[in-house]
Amino acid sequence: MKFLPAKLERKFRRLKKHSRSSLTRKLDVMHESARKKVIEENCDAYKNQKHSEYECRKRPTSSKAPSSIFVSNRNISIEFPGGTRETFLSEGSFHQAVGRVLLVAEFFAMMPVKGVTAKHPGDLSFSWRNVRTCFCLVFIASSLANFGLSLFKVLNNPISFNSVKPIIFRGSVLLVLIVALRLAQQWPTLMMYWHEVEQGLPQYPSQVGKGQMGHTIRMVMLVGMMLSFAEHLLSMISAIHYARYCNSTSDPIKNYFLRTNDEIFYVTSYSTALALWGKFQNVYSTFIWNYMDMFVMIVSIGLAAKFRQLNNDLRNFKGMHMAPSYWSERRIQYRNICVLCDKMDDAISLITMVSFSNNLYFICVQLLRSLNTMPSVAHAVYFYFSLIFLIGRTLAVSLYSASVHDESRLTLRYLRCVPKDSWCPEVKRFSEEVINDEVALSGMKFFHLTRKLVLSVAGTIVTYELVLIQFHEDNDLWDCNQSYYS
Amino acid sequence: MKFLPAKLERKFRRLKKHSRSSLTRKLDVMHESARKKVIEENCDAYKNQKHSEYECRKRPTSSKAPSSIFVSNRNISIEFPGGTRETFLSEGSFHQAVGRVLLVAEFFAMMPVKGVTAKHPGDLSFSWRNVRTCFCLVFIASSLANFGLSLFKVLNNPISFNSVKPIIFRGSVLLVLIVALRLAQQWPTLMMYWHEVEQGLPQYPSQVGKGQMGHTIRMVMLVGMMLSFAEHLLSMISAIHYARYCNSTSDPIKNYFLRTNDEIFYVTSYSTALALWGKFQNVYSTFIWNYMDMFVMIVSIGLAAKFRQLNNDLRNFKGMHMAPSYWSERRIQYRNICVLCDKMDDAISLITMVSFSNNLYFICVQLLRSLNTMPSVAHAVYFYFSLIFLIGRTLAVSLYSASVHDESRLTLRYLRCVPKDSWCPEVKRFSEEVINDEVALSGMKFFHLTRKLVLSVAGTIVTYELVLIQFHEDNDLWDCNQSYYS
Amino acid sequence: MKFLPAKLERKFRRLKKHSRSSLTRKLDVMHESARKKVIEENCDAYKNQKHSEYECRKRPTSSKAPSSIFVSNRNISIEFPGGTRETFLSEGSFHQAVGRVLLVAEFFAMMPVKGVTAKHPGDLSFSWRNVRTCFCLVFIASSLANFGLSLFKVLNNPISFNSVKPIIFRGSVLLVLIVALRLAQQWPTLMMYWHEVEQGLPQYPSQVGKGQMGHTIRMVMLVGMMLSFAEHLLSMISAIHYARYCNSTSDPIKNYFLRTNDEIFYVTSYSTALALWGKFQNVYSTFIWNYMDMFVMIVSIGLAAKFRQLNNDLRNFKGMHMAPSYWSERRIQYRNICVLCDKMDDAISLITMVSFSNNLYFICVQLLRSLNTMPSVAHAVYFYFSLIFLIGRTLAVSLYSASVHDESRLTLRYLRCVPKDSWCPEVKRFSEEVINDEVALSGMKFFHLTRKLVLSVAGTIVTYELVLIQFHEDNDLWDCNQSYYS
Amino acid sequence: MKFLPAKLERKFRRLKKHSRSSLTRKLDVMHESARKKVIEENCDAYKNQKHSEYECRKRPTSSKAPSSIFVSNRNISIEFPGGTRETFLSEGSFHQAVGRVLLVAEFFAMMPVKGVTAKHPGDLSFSWRNVRTCFCLVFIASSLANFGLSLFKVLNNPISFNSVKPIIFRGSVLLVLIVALRLAQQWPTLMMYWHEVEQGLPQYPSQVGKGQMGHTIRMVMLVGMMLSFAEHLLSMISAIHYARYCNSTSDPIKNYFLRTNDEIFYVTSYSTALALWGKFQNVYSTFIWNYMDMFVMIVSIGLAAKFRQLNNDLRNFKGMHMAPSYWSERRIQYRNICVLCDKMDDAISLITMVSFSNNLYFICVQLLRSLNTMPSVAHAVYFYFSLIFLIGRTLAVSLYSASVHDESRLTLRYLRCVPKDSWCPEVKRFSEEVINDEVALSGMKFFHLTRKLVLSVAGTIVTYELVLIQFHEDNDLWDCNQSYYS
Repeated sequence: MKFLPAKLERKFRRLKKHSRSSLTRKLDVMHESARKKVIEENCDAYKNQKHSEYECRKRPTSSKAPSSIFVSNRNISIEFPGGTRETFLSEGSFHQAVGRVLLVAEFFAMMPVKGVTAKHPGDLSFSWRNVRTCFCLVFIASSLANFGLSLFKVLNNPISFNSVKPIIFRGSVLLVLIVALRLAQQWPTLMMYWHEVEQGLPQYPSQVGKGQMGHTIRMVMLVGMMLSFAEHLLSMISAIHYARYCNSTSDPIKNYFLRTNDEIFYVTSYSTALALWGKFQNVYSTFIWNYMDMFVMIVSIGLAAKFRQLNNDLRNFKGMHMAPSYWSERRIQYRNICVLCDKMDDAISLITMVSFSNNLYFICVQLLRSLNTMPSVAHAVYFYFSLIFLIGRTLAVSLYSASVHDESRLTLRYLRCVPKDSWCPEVKRFSEEVINDEVALSGMKFFHLTRKLVLSVAGTIVTYELVLIQFHEDNDLWDCNQSYYS
Repeated sequence: MKFLPAKLERKFRRLKKHSRSSLTRKLDVMHESARKKVIEENCDAYKNQKHSEYECRKRPTSSKAPSSIFVSNRNISIEFPGGTRETFLSEGSFHQAVGRVLLVAEFFAMMPVKGVTAKHPGDLSFSWRNVRTCFCLVFIASSLANFGLSLFKVLNNPISFNSVKPIIFRGSVLLVLIVALRLAQQWPTLMMYWHEVEQGLPQYPSQVGKGQMGHTIRMVMLVGMMLSFAEHLLSMISAIHYARYCNSTSDPIKNYFLRTNDEIFYVTSYSTALALWGKFQNVYSTFIWNYMDMFVMIVSIGLAAKFRQLNNDLRNFKGMHMAPSYWSERRIQYRNICVLCDKMDDAISLITMVSFSNNLYFICVQLLRSLNTMPSVAHAVYFYFSLIFLIGRTLAVSLYSASVHDESRLTLRYLRCVPKDSWCPEVKRFSEEVINDEVALSGMKFFHLTRKLVLSVAGTIVTYELVLIQFHEDNDLWDCNQSYYS
Repeated sequence: MKFLPAKLERKFRRLKKHSRSSLTRKLDVMHESARKKVIEENCDAYKNQKHSEYECRKRPTSSKAPSSIFVSNRNISIEFPGGTRETFLSEGSFHQAVGRVLLVAEFFAMMPVKGVTAKHPGDLSFSWRNVRTCFCLVFIASSLANFGLSLFKVLNNPISFNSVKPIIFRGSVLLVLIVALRLAQQWPTLMMYWHEVEQGLPQYPSQVGKGQMGHTIRMVMLVGMMLSFAEHLLSMISAIHYARYCNSTSDPIKNYFLRTNDEIFYVTSYSTALALWGKFQNVYSTFIWNYMDMFVMIVSIGLAAKFRQLNNDLRNFKGMHMAPSYWSERRIQYRNICVLCDKMDDAISLITMVSFSNNLYFICVQLLRSLNTMPSVAHAVYFYFSLIFLIGRTLAVSLYSASVHDESRLTLRYLRCVPKDSWCPEVKRFSEEVINDEVALSGMKFFHLTRKLVLSVAGTIVTYELVLIQFHEDNDLWDCNQSYYS
Repeated sequence: MKFLPAKLERKFRRLKKHSRSSLTRKLDVMHESARKKVIEENCDAYKNQKHSEYECRKRPTSSKAPSSIFVSNRNISIEFPGGTRETFLSEGSFHQAVGRVLLVAEFFAMMPVKGVTAKHPGDLSFSWRNVRTCFCLVFIASSLANFGLSLFKVLNNPISFNSVKPIIFRGSVLLVLIVALRLAQQWPTLMMYWHEVEQGLPQYPSQVGKGQMGHTIRMVMLVGMMLSFAEHLLSMISAIHYARYCNSTSDPIKNYFLRTNDEIFYVTSYSTALALWGKFQNVYSTFIWNYMDMFVMIVSIGLAAKFRQLNNDLRNFKGMHMAPSYWSERRIQYRNICVLCDKMDDAISLITMVSFSNNLYFICVQLLRSLNTMPSVAHAVYFYFSLIFLIGRTLAVSLYSASVHDESRLTLRYLRCVPKDSWCPEVKRFSEEVINDEVALSGMKFFHLTRKLVLSVAGTIVTYELVLIQFHEDNDLWDCNQSYYS
């Protein structure tokens, strides 16, 4: 090449130049110069700053792969000199965030997995001979008996939209218990996959970001539990009032149990042991009934947080000239979260479905009741608190689970800002995948949890309520012979 | 080139290197190395194993084309020394799997095709002068007469949602009979096309995979037939009870026939010959009414199995570096199954439509009845068995036919995992086709059979039931003057 | 190059070969050879045949552009020696096919365009001073008066879903008349554009193909007119019966007119002149009410035929290796038909909307009536004939207009079969346009006329009917004080 | 290169030629020549003309960037010699068009932003200590008191679909007031972003185009205000009639205030000061209730106008050969408007949602009332005027906000006409973005405002009305004890 480079290169350049028409070239030059100036002004300072940040963040990551022991210090994060990066990873993993939530569930005989509070998902295990599993199986048997009694009572009375409430309540609790047991078996594998996906994701830039998901999950759990506890207390007060009002025997405690566990004493006569079993069953069922909604919320928060983590990284480099390999890496990470989302959906979609249809049914039943006059103020307070709690919980489940879909679509916003020169097949492929894949939790693939679903569910409820109001006659659902649940 | 290769090559490499900015290059190298390591670790061992498998499986296929005689040994598969590959092909073809199903149908005067149990679809034929065709035509004429009598009775009484049941029942049976006759004419061509598509598909890796589709089809047919037989028996018992209860004459057998074939004896007086004809007509109609659902299921199972066969092959090579020609071949195979799906849909979509609207109508009618008090326990047992059978059958048809669509979308999952270096225009074209084509059975293109449809159908039924419950008055549908079917 | 070609070429080939891995190359070779054989076997013979056809058909077209005089011999087509291609173009143009249809419309005071039966769309013209336009304006004024009288009568009586029928009937006729007048002004331009698009399309291969669209349009018009005439006759017979039954005066003719034009004689006393004017108004309104549906059908047939013409050409070359310019040409033709479709939709979408909402309303009203007992057999016959005619007409409009969308999607099927080697950016662009554009007639862009729409409309009607049946009380819509229309 | 160019070039060309098959080449040549001729005929003259236009318009723009002071002369536009381009920019900005509209809003205690009529959006500011903000806060407090009184009255009476009207009316006014206050804080930032987007857009070709958006906005505001004023007057007249008719006291003015502010005098006895406060509250609430619809319309008009400005430029160069940089620039501009649309949607989507649900609720309530007989002519006139105004306003909001989506889709039409040679990755990317992004205002992302939404809303209302008519009993909503709202 030594003997012709200058000439050849000049020739090639000239050829390239002349191949385009004069008009096109002129416009091109004009546009190009205008565009360049704007971009350069905006980007340069930012880019330099970001680049140095990126380099800093990249360094520890590149040396991360060989080590595999993780030390979890959730609340404090001490940086050892020399930067052992275990401390960096201690927060922000879904396994750690969800640990206490599962511990509470285990106390209520759900999800008997061992090692939920362990630092590494590898310590999770499921065994049929574990005491948790046994407790869970015993409770399932007990619930089955209770469900059988409810079924017997309901079938021996005329069936209506309102009277099947106890079966639906106890039936779905039973179903969720069984699904949760099956889920417990898969949980170690799922958490390991989750862990792998988290390892591959771009790291959080700060400790605040790391702790956020865990914080949200704990808050949701706390608020949910407290409200559900408040609702149960109010329900008890209202039931005591009601029992006094109907007054079948002289013993107020007996009256209370006769009302709240009518399905038991429909078959046998009153006994304190059975009453206590019924009470225990009611408390546990109520918790599980609330927990299934919270569980769907928590998984949704976890999945949405992973998408947000990826989106945050994309936002940091928004509009900048990135190498194709950057996009390729992000695409594979996005794909991994999608696959994770799919696996979680397969595992919990039955719970999601039960949770949604339950909420829909109970809202409709409560609205049907709302048209009747309340027998007492205690009832009115309990009723409206319970209705608002129910609607609020349904909305929360809907919106949190829709957020997975929303976050997964948000990625597109950053891909739209990729500058012309960085537009490569990998970015194209990435954006096509984001556009065409419907990433969302689903109810057994029959419906996807998106914001549009919330509207159609709300529309259905409003229509039902309108029809109810239009043809309203006082059905007197508050009479003393009416069944009572939880 | 001998006198400049080293220099030129060095020059070119340097040029290429320098053409990208320093930042981009650095990032690129970093990303690339990280990505490569992960991929290599995961893939290499697997790839080597798969490659040898692929080579083994490829060899017999490449020499397959010239031979054209197939020996079918469905239950045993003896491998001759030297490996005559006819034995390999004996299982797994839709024609063979569906043979006995069609034989049963022919016994019930449907689908008069000759050679349904032959080993090769080339032996199929349709002739107007065949005894099956004649039997079929005679039965159509007989059904037409029965339909006419039903129509006459219904039009001479006040029309309601419930009273048109006999016309809809007999009308759809008649329609399906005629469509099946037309389908019988096309069947040989369809099976030949199906055979060609199957020949082109990647082979099953094991004998188990080959037999699976046939096994599922036989099971569906067996369970469907047995349940339908049980339902007919229960219906007879309930009708005998009913006949005794209404007690128009002293002869219980006469009573029974007067009730179950009221459309005949509305016109003429009672005669044993007519009663037997009516009974024969009822038994056959009931079978055909059940068979149309099963036929849609069986075709769906066949189509879904073909997509699954393709997907299995794609899963085996998931994430590996395949040549563009591999993708091109798979794309053409996918296209062929789509075309097959289209052809089958054109041929059976009228049956699908009749089956769906029938199920929807009968569920609504049964739900309307469910609100009334049952005259006897025999009725209650029959009624609830029949309702659950109906809902179960509808769900089974819906879900099996939705599985065609689900399987056809699953292909996308494997295309998403094609590594960056193997991403070629053919893969792009393939994935765009999978995304944009709606491959599913349809009801005359008015609706596509997907999981979302199941939800909207369920929603419609629930809404109808809710409206019913809200405005329920006992319509007394169990009175003695009510028409009776099957 | 003389001194290094052999060496260089060898070098380049070797380089290219070695750049791919050994595995990839081996697979590639295997796949390629298998694929090639299949394609070659299928295609070669067919291709040769088609190519010669194509060459033949191409020759006259390429010399077509300069001439611009067209001779129309619709029924006979004499080929002059030397092949003057004017005779080829005589059939198959929408302008010629629709000529007589518009002539009939002009007789009924709609679409006053001059030159509808001319051989070239260039001869079309609209003028405010033309006698047709004047007739049309006079009739609009007369209809307006009639509409005012109807409105006056309806507003002075209690309003119900049924009682507003005369206003809706006369109101939509008036609206369509005004829209048709505005359309008449645009008609010459639209037909010229249509003519240009037709000129650019691939020619019909045979005389049969050319005449098909015209034949379908004439048949639709004929059948539609005859059925509408039969319905009007039956309506008259039924009204005469009805007038005798209600018997307000002794004169049967006077009775008849008092009933059918009650809106006139609600204001003034009976006079023969007014009765005749009312009759004239009724006959014309009925025609226009039927004509608007037929007009939508005819435009749909025309547009679908243009897409079919293009699809036929694509089918002829399906699976063959075509030059990029072939695809580019077809894409531009497809685009032109889309633009034509858009223009026609803008022009007639108000008529489409009126036609659809009218049909929906009248079906609902008739179904409401269907639950009442008929006063006489004449009424029953008229009522059921009219109901079936209405439903059939609605279905026909829906399906014919949905066929535009169906045909426009069919193009995709042929693009899917483009072989790998011919897959070029133009084909890609073409297929993306077909996938993403929703080409269909619409009701003012509020809804697109597709097969899915038909289902949702049918669903709405069935739901309405179900609600009606559920809460049915005999509303006695057949009493003598009820208004009467047409 | 001097010693081999001619030979090499010839060689290369020959190689390229021979690489395609003879058939392909021949077809190619034929097609190409035909296509070229058509394009050249159509384009050349037009192109030359447009090119010169483009050059003219481009010149001032390229020198625009440095200056940043804008002189606004809305009605007159004097061109200084030497062409200071500030005058060109004076019209056409959304900030200027919306200035007076916001001024009116501020008079009614909404949107307390300072500097709304300033010439440059940079002069906008929000301060808590501004007198407007204080007025706004005082009015919010006053509205809150009024809302509390309404709530108290409603909860102490039986609740029905009709009786909650005052709460919904006052509640949504209060909500909108608070949202508007929050929006006022964001307004300066939003207007600055809007200004930047407008600066980057292709300029209007004429002064007429510049003024159009402002003119439409002013017209909408004027017509809306006048109709709302007329409605309020009619409502007063009808209320005075009504008060006389019910006649609780002898003082007609007292009667009037007792009726229109029944929520105040339900708690306290009559006093003139309270009556005046109630009147003031009513007038302001009515304005705000109307203003929220107009505000959504005005923002929609602004956004649609920006898309139209871009589309106009694309239409000017439709079908021409433009440089890739032209498309790149347009794509970035399109993206900017999309981002603007997103930001505005985030800011006003709560108002949109309140506006839509309000309109839907009030239409349903009015339709429910429409079935009752009116107590007087004044009531009938007011009622029908109010109903038509309500429906018209709802339609106007729907259609204006749907126009944003329509305009954003229109861009695709011009991208479809890009000639084959200009089809570059940038055009591809542009068209993919237009196809896949759903650009529209939304109601909190639960629904997007498109034309399809209008249909489904209309369908819902019609269904509700049908159900109402079917089960109509006179509910006597016009009795004297009924609540009343302005």
